[in-house]
Amino acid sequence: MGMWIGRNRKARVTYGFDEIALVPGRVTINPNEVDITFRLPRKAAEPLELKIPILASAMDGVVDVGFAIAMNKLGGLAVLNLEGVQTRYKNPQEVLQKIVEASKSEITALLQRIYQEPIQQDLIAARVRQIKDAGVVAAVSSIPQRAAEFGRIAQEADADVFVVQSTVSTVRHISSEYKSLDLEKFCREMRIPVIVGNTVGYDVTLEIMECGPAAVLVGVGPGAACTSRGVLGLGVPQVTATVDCAAARDAYFKKTSRMATPHANLPRGTRIKVGATGSLKQILFGPAEVDDGSQNLVGAITTCMGNVGARNLPEFQQTEIIIAPSIRTEGKLFQTVQSVGMGTS
Amino acid sequence: MGMWIGRNRKARVTYGFDEIALVPGRVTINPNEVDITFRLPRKAAEPLELKIPILASAMDGVVDVGFAIAMNKLGGLAVLNLEGVQTRYKNPQEVLQKIVEASKSEITALLQRIYQEPIQQDLIAARVRQIKDAGVVAAVSSIPQRAAEFGRIAQEADADVFVVQSTVSTVRHISSEYKSLDLEKFCREMRIPVIVGNTVGYDVTLEIMECGPAAVLVGVGPGAACTSRGVLGLGVPQVTATVDCAAARDAYFKKTSRMATPHANLPRGTRIKVGATGSLKQILFGPAEVDDGSQNLVGAITTCMGNVGARNLPEFQQTEIIIAPSIRTEGKLFQTVQSVGMGTS
Amino acid sequence: MGMWIGRNRKARVTYGFDEIALVPGRVTINPNEVDITFRLPRKAAEPLELKIPILASAMDGVVDVGFAIAMNKLGGLAVLNLEGVQTRYKNPQEVLQKIVEASKSEITALLQRIYQEPIQQDLIAARVRQIKDAGVVAAVSSIPQRAAEFGRIAQEADADVFVVQSTVSTVRHISSEYKSLDLEKFCREMRIPVIVGNTVGYDVTLEIMECGPAAVLVGVGPGAACTSRGVLGLGVPQVTATVDCAAARDAYFKKTSRMATPHANLPRGTRIKVGATGSLKQILFGPAEVDDGSQNLVGAITTCMGNVGARNLPEFQQTEIIIAPSIRTEGKLFQTVQSVGMGTS
Amino acid sequence: MGMWIGRNRKARVTYGFDEIALVPGRVTINPNEVDITFRLPRKAAEPLELKIPILASAMDGVVDVGFAIAMNKLGGLAVLNLEGVQTRYKNPQEVLQKIVEASKSEITALLQRIYQEPIQQDLIAARVRQIKDAGVVAAVSSIPQRAAEFGRIAQEADADVFVVQSTVSTVRHISSEYKSLDLEKFCREMRIPVIVGNTVGYDVTLEIMECGPAAVLVGVGPGAACTSRGVLGLGVPQVTATVDCAAARDAYFKKTSRMATPHANLPRGTRIKVGATGSLKQILFGPAEVDDGSQNLVGAITTCMGNVGARNLPEFQQTEIIIAPSIRTEGKLFQTVQSVGMGTS
Repeated sequence: MGMWIGRNRKARVTYGFDEIALVPGRVTINPNEVDITFRLPRKAAEPLELKIPILASAMDGVVDVGFAIAMNKLGGLAVLNLEGVQTRYKNPQEVLQKIVEASKSEITALLQRIYQEPIQQDLIAARVRQIKDAGVVAAVSSIPQRAAEFGRIAQEADADVFVVQSTVSTVRHISSEYKSLDLEKFCREMRIPVIVGNTVGYDVTLEIMECGPAAVLVGVGPGAACTSRGVLGLGVPQVTATVDCAAARDAYFKKTSRMATPHANLPRGTRIKVGATGSLKQILFGPAEVDDGSQNLVGAITTCMGNVGARNLPEFQQTEIIIAPSIRTEGKLFQTVQSVGMGTS
Repeated sequence: MGMWIGRNRKARVTYGFDEIALVPGRVTINPNEVDITFRLPRKAAEPLELKIPILASAMDGVVDVGFAIAMNKLGGLAVLNLEGVQTRYKNPQEVLQKIVEASKSEITALLQRIYQEPIQQDLIAARVRQIKDAGVVAAVSSIPQRAAEFGRIAQEADADVFVVQSTVSTVRHISSEYKSLDLEKFCREMRIPVIVGNTVGYDVTLEIMECGPAAVLVGVGPGAACTSRGVLGLGVPQVTATVDCAAARDAYFKKTSRMATPHANLPRGTRIKVGATGSLKQILFGPAEVDDGSQNLVGAITTCMGNVGARNLPEFQQTEIIIAPSIRTEGKLFQTVQSVGMGTS
Repeated sequence: MGMWIGRNRKARVTYGFDEIALVPGRVTINPNEVDITFRLPRKAAEPLELKIPILASAMDGVVDVGFAIAMNKLGGLAVLNLEGVQTRYKNPQEVLQKIVEASKSEITALLQRIYQEPIQQDLIAARVRQIKDAGVVAAVSSIPQRAAEFGRIAQEADADVFVVQSTVSTVRHISSEYKSLDLEKFCREMRIPVIVGNTVGYDVTLEIMECGPAAVLVGVGPGAACTSRGVLGLGVPQVTATVDCAAARDAYFKKTSRMATPHANLPRGTRIKVGATGSLKQILFGPAEVDDGSQNLVGAITTCMGNVGARNLPEFQQTEIIIAPSIRTEGKLFQTVQSVGMGTS
Repeated sequence: MGMWIGRNRKARVTYGFDEIALVPGRVTINPNEVDITFRLPRKAAEPLELKIPILASAMDGVVDVGFAIAMNKLGGLAVLNLEGVQTRYKNPQEVLQKIVEASKSEITALLQRIYQEPIQQDLIAARVRQIKDAGVVAAVSSIPQRAAEFGRIAQEADADVFVVQSTVSTVRHISSEYKSLDLEKFCREMRIPVIVGNTVGYDVTLEIMECGPAAVLVGVGPGAACTSRGVLGLGVPQVTATVDCAAARDAYFKKTSRMATPHANLPRGTRIKVGATGSLKQILFGPAEVDDGSQNLVGAITTCMGNVGARNLPEFQQTEIIIAPSIRTEGKLFQTVQSVGMGTS
């Protein structure tokens, strides 16, 4: 297991989502008849059922209260970031607008300034209640260091799901500056389901699962560069899906610019244009009016499940994976050259 | 067999046509002396002989009645799609013209509208007879769900070959909305040769072959994204050949735009420009007037067979394959930079 | 040995020159002190010594009489193609000029027309004598089918080396249209050294070596697409060197366009611009005035030999090879973006 | 160990820095609490401690006296090249200015002319003293052939570190033109720490370490093409860090063009634009005002160490490495297309 990279040192070979593919099934299924319900286990209740297994990332550029309500009504789960503009500003809409309008040269400094404003604890409960008042489930998130405190506030405000979010999550984190999260204790004491993400290492994921969360998000990328992407417990490639959630949100707000993960001292995130191509409902359920894969995400999932012969999500997770680097370009010559269809990206 | 992709999960490595090559033979053959006849077995007759082993894809953008007649006269086999514009419209030429003229922004919606028109059963027999009246063989196709019905109509109209076409073909397909095709029964009951395609999975192909079709098409790409490409039972890379069939058809009709696989709800196909460079005969047999490989497809096949030392197609199928990713770029620096010769693509 | 490409079929993995590298030696040598003399064994004489191990390809775009004289005086070996314009036209210079001036759309047809003119046997001897009269060695080539006849004429005209040239050389070639070359008999009967090239398959090369040629050229590319490139018996990557021979020749004639391998029916060759950057002497021996590796080829070879610790060519051939795909881009970010130095290609 | 590249020849597979990644730790650490002190052993004194493990390459385009003082005050180690313009010219600033202003077509010839000026021995001691007079450590370098002589002069002038610099360093070098360096003897006799670099071969590195240097620089690239890049003994990928040192120096001097390794006869180096984005302090310690990774190098190192769970540099060197070619593009679609953030390169 591993290739030699020196006379006495081996390295495992790892693969990205772009390099793998799912093996077509020996049995196929009519896509209209596959079951894509996602069930999130709860402690003192029936599982929380999501009609569609699509999670909107807890990024300021993706989820705010209005989007969370719209998304959750349609059967998905939008996670509101408790450490972003929503809890730092009474009127986050104004702040987002400034970000959209900033020029390329001033955007990094602006983002840093915006995120120096302190989090207002009363806004945490307020945001949860705004979502709940619409009659839908509410999911919120924070990084591990604040999970104990923010998780308690969110739970008291009647949130349905709490996400412990981290670029690289580990069960054990060493720090003398702040108190590390005791994940096992946190999962045991929270009454609502805890989701942990985005894990990127195999061993870390196993250790996290032993702490008893309701689900684990599998992130993209083998190291520190990975960002808040992943799909609710699927364990299969869904990059397109989560990318398009940003597009969906974009469609909702009719804006054209968003940011990822700003950081005062070492910015790794940046503002990107997503460019939504239709309404949120159309992006999720179609009918697609464009041919680039950015609409009808649910149709894409059910077609894929039909092709691989998976009747439901647990079966989908068991699909055989192949390593197939050429799948990115194979048979797409005309599309790529002419920038149409799947050749656009 | 397979690489580790996690502590307890393996994945096979797979390769695309762009990544493999055929090994030059220890014996070479004068290309003028190789035999490229393809023989399709028939139940109550001698095999159907095709002078050249080139199949024109059953796509609306490639095959109509006129093209089928021209192609089959030249020794190949053009397959007419029974679910496209040819059987939905009395005058498909008008419809194709609209597609050619549509702007980039309206093309997806137009394609969806065009394919909502119902199939007219009397047009199926009519198209077969139009081809037969020219004194050539007629090959038609449908997806599995309609094969039982359309196969019977085509056979009664005196078609010579029926193609069961599917993005991902499996012997077993689960659906309660419609009746799945019993492929074994279908192959047993049809009097004319049945070709099944485009298979992409190895296991599926083996199961299909046990159902008794006359031939199986091997498609491009390991998953759901693969489209109707492949070459009649060769089992060797022929991507260029099938791409150029679209160019050939284009040359025939003097049009410049075609579409692939439109779908009302989840379009994966799109309209692409092919741009023919010569007459159909020239594209198939040369002499080539251009140096980009889009003319004299038969010359390309015989030269390749001569180089690998294959005297006929069964021997060609046994050629040793090597995995050679660098073959795409090796020694093509000048051509690529200057967009001449094989460096164009 | 090999990767599985199907449940019961394996394929060997092969590598291109761009994917491999030579391992730096544990001992290094002052480049000024390595010996690059190439010795070509002769039957009834001392070996033919070449001061520099660089062969100019037998292509009409590279070698004519004047270039052969200039190149061979400088210590290399330029091979004149006996089937190109030099033996079809009394005044080949005129013909080359037409090729240079033709537009992109007419070039393929023009090349085909030019190569339909028959070869004039008296010009074969004339060209050899023109080179010999300058007091340098003369090397000429033909494809296998004509080697018996042209080899005899060239030898009688006092040529020093005969090259049997072929896209894919094999010892055994099957044809009823023409007589195949009996390579073993040919090598035994020729008095002057016979070089065979360009071989691309390992087994074929072994079989050819058993026929007793003086040297074998190792070509680029694993299949039929490989062209007349290779370096005299080195067995190590020399792509840059042969490419630059075209540049060298270009410098000599002050022209800017050349063609590769035209073919009446299936053109795979094409006309490319090479663009020489200095005089032939400067290209071979420096001093280099540019930083893109196109000048001072001998300096590049001796520096490389010094770094890997090879004192002479036989030792150079034994250098350990590594597979290192990243060598093409590693550490060249700035150069590539700014199109300077080795980042240009 | 190795892949077959012929029937009786194997080749090891090697990887570039772009193809590997560090495995996230099962334990993570607060980045503010990792220790990045680098300790360089000395013979008759406590180890020389560097606050930050960043080395500025001994290239004329990177280090001069002023930059060395500024860099070393900030805790890093800038190495002054004793064979560049600093020791050939009393006023090197003028010369650098000419290089900056030269046009693209004249730059190679200009560089060759500049480096034909002889080295003035008195300038070696003068440069060392200029640096020492500022109260910081002084590090200088030469190629092996001149190390014995220049090392002695530098040591007498009170330099703190001597770097034996070579494209491909070996313990044994064969030459009759000049005296090869006896590295073991040199390391034994020098009183100040000797660093050897840039080694690229594993076996060579082991042999060099047995000669007793204080540290070995690990270079980029498996062959002769590698240039003066590497990070002080870390043994982990730090390409970005060293590239950015050039940017740092650029910021210091407010210039926009630099050159790499000019050579009179075979130029492999070239002049590149680096384009600094901030002050040297900002580049090293932040706060970063841009999002492309070119600022706050120390923050990048500590964040990485925190993520992989390394408390100090010796632990960092033991981090598990994975081979992960897709890490270059994975999840960076939007950034790449829009040229923002890490997608810029």
